[in-house]
Amino acid sequence: MKFNITDFVKPWVPGLEEYIPGKTLKGYIKLASNENNYGPTLRVVRAIEDNRLLTHIYPHMYELIQKKVSGYCSLTHEYAIVGNGSDEILDMILKVFKGPALGFYPSFAGYKLFTKILGENYLEINLNKDFSFPVDEFIKKSKDANILFLCNPNNPTGTVMFEDDIIKILNEGKITIVDETYYEFYGKTVIPLISEYNNLIVLRTFSKAFALAGLRLGYAISNPEIIRLLHKVKPPFNVSSMAQMAGVGALDDEYATKMIISKILKDREKMYREISRKFRVLKPNANFLFVDVSPMKSSEFCEKLFKEKIIVRNIGKLEGFEGEYVRISVGTEEENRELLRVLASF
Amino acid sequence: MKFNITDFVKPWVPGLEEYIPGKTLKGYIKLASNENNYGPTLRVVRAIEDNRLLTHIYPHMYELIQKKVSGYCSLTHEYAIVGNGSDEILDMILKVFKGPALGFYPSFAGYKLFTKILGENYLEINLNKDFSFPVDEFIKKSKDANILFLCNPNNPTGTVMFEDDIIKILNEGKITIVDETYYEFYGKTVIPLISEYNNLIVLRTFSKAFALAGLRLGYAISNPEIIRLLHKVKPPFNVSSMAQMAGVGALDDEYATKMIISKILKDREKMYREISRKFRVLKPNANFLFVDVSPMKSSEFCEKLFKEKIIVRNIGKLEGFEGEYVRISVGTEEENRELLRVLASF
Repeated sequence: MKFNITDFVKPWVPGLEEYIPGKTLKGYIKLASNENNYGPTLRVVRAIEDNRLLTHIYPHMYELIQKKVSGYCSLTHEYAIVGNGSDEILDMILKVFKGPALGFYPSFAGYKLFTKILGENYLEINLNKDFSFPVDEFIKKSKDANILFLCNPNNPTGTVMFEDDIIKILNEGKITIVDETYYEFYGKTVIPLISEYNNLIVLRTFSKAFALAGLRLGYAISNPEIIRLLHKVKPPFNVSSMAQMAGVGALDDEYATKMIISKILKDREKMYREISRKFRVLKPNANFLFVDVSPMKSSEFCEKLFKEKIIVRNIGKLEGFEGEYVRISVGTEEENRELLRVLASF
Repeated sequence: MKFNITDFVKPWVPGLEEYIPGKTLKGYIKLASNENNYGPTLRVVRAIEDNRLLTHIYPHMYELIQKKVSGYCSLTHEYAIVGNGSDEILDMILKVFKGPALGFYPSFAGYKLFTKILGENYLEINLNKDFSFPVDEFIKKSKDANILFLCNPNNPTGTVMFEDDIIKILNEGKITIVDETYYEFYGKTVIPLISEYNNLIVLRTFSKAFALAGLRLGYAISNPEIIRLLHKVKPPFNVSSMAQMAGVGALDDEYATKMIISKILKDREKMYREISRKFRVLKPNANFLFVDVSPMKSSEFCEKLFKEKIIVRNIGKLEGFEGEYVRISVGTEEENRELLRVLASF
């Protein structure tokens, strides 16, 4: 048999780069993935317990979770699509709409990753030196793109874009994704703009404030026409029944989550103050801190913490920017105290 | 703002057809999706209980489940990739390899669905009148395709392809997927051919015999080069931690599952005998029966069962074939008895 694999592989696939996730290790404090370390609320745990004998049934509560997330956003079900994490919704967006895509740098690595996987071009505009958004430059470049990615608050910088600027970008008439992964910590949303801008897709997740990262549950809110198109490429059983039911439980526990969020925000301010005494820290807007540890090397900073059983995210140098960066999630009160204790010796 | 959505949509997306899954309704016996109605084994339930407080952590047991499934196939981890159901692995295959794809008709609807979603052509060869495989005709047509889908045993017919025929097809040197979704019921596999044929990908799932359809867990076994390419397009957190751990639990309970499988196979033979008295039933090779209910209408057959709170899959007429078809899963002993009781009055 003659078989040459390269004859069959799409040309862009061999060059794709791997994503390196934050490490999880037993006995370590993990402040590397912006998880909510207080864990799930009671109704989530109950939903899992109630479903533990029903794993053999294909997921069949899609309509329920779809209705629930849209209701959480004060909309009806036809404005929502639910995915296996918001990652999967990025994939669906890129399956429905033509590239190229445009995003800022640094920003969430997934935009580039999922764009490239589908063989589309990904264009980037560097943030300003202070990590604010060069909106006019972005708009200029957007002429060359069909899909625009805005992450607000931006990961990993935590910087935010004002609604006026988002509107300016929306007015360019391109498919515009506003990723509100950290919405529950930031408190501001552009979902009300959906009635006016039918090129707007708002991306949300249960992985951060709602503490369901391990179950994979994300959603997008947009006008019904875009939502219908996204459903055309949605795999029939993309969201597990466990994620569907846990998501319902999480939203039924919204009040409990709000309490936890305000605790995290209070602790974040304390961490921001404390760490700012030694390092340059950007004003946070989500559940993490973006820290320039120079003149220390970021790898050295992370290794020192790792020896003390604390894992943070090493961002390192950013092309076009000065400094050495790490991203530190706000953990539980106890974890944060331990981090500050260790940092005191740096 | 001027925004015309059709300027942005990939041309094949609006025409995509929706997949209609089997219904799940409380109080009904569901024999429509080839699930294992005995439900999960003890170690699966334990794994879920052990993980119910850890939903906030991103999935981090990928290497473990990858090692576990490859071990189950007597191979090492570099021969396996794990997905959010085997559906997701179909999507990955179509992201890595160029179309067109070729499959039989009727067969699993997912091959066509996922091929079309990525804008690739899907070619079909009708099965023989008796639903056996027209291998030579398939081989002839395979010259026009890069990806070949074989479902063995075939869904929904339950018919099987002999290894000699699979080898003949492999010798064509195309990317060849052998979908062994029902392997645990059929007992035969082509995994040993992987060492010889580096164009072979074997697809497997935890949704059937292992009773994890609701958690979404599937895998593929192939040579390390293909597995590496598939990992290039794998989303970082595609498999939930619940599915990872439940999968490990399921394989640790392999013996318990084997007991259940032999029970299901015994009951299947009884159902085959009984239903054959009234209708034409194909010889089953998996955990379902493919039944020609003509001269009755298949929709009428299904409705009559539905009134008695039993749900089976209405296949209906098949283009190019005579008859009216339904697919009936083998359920628990009690469910099967109820089905036969109701069918006695047909």
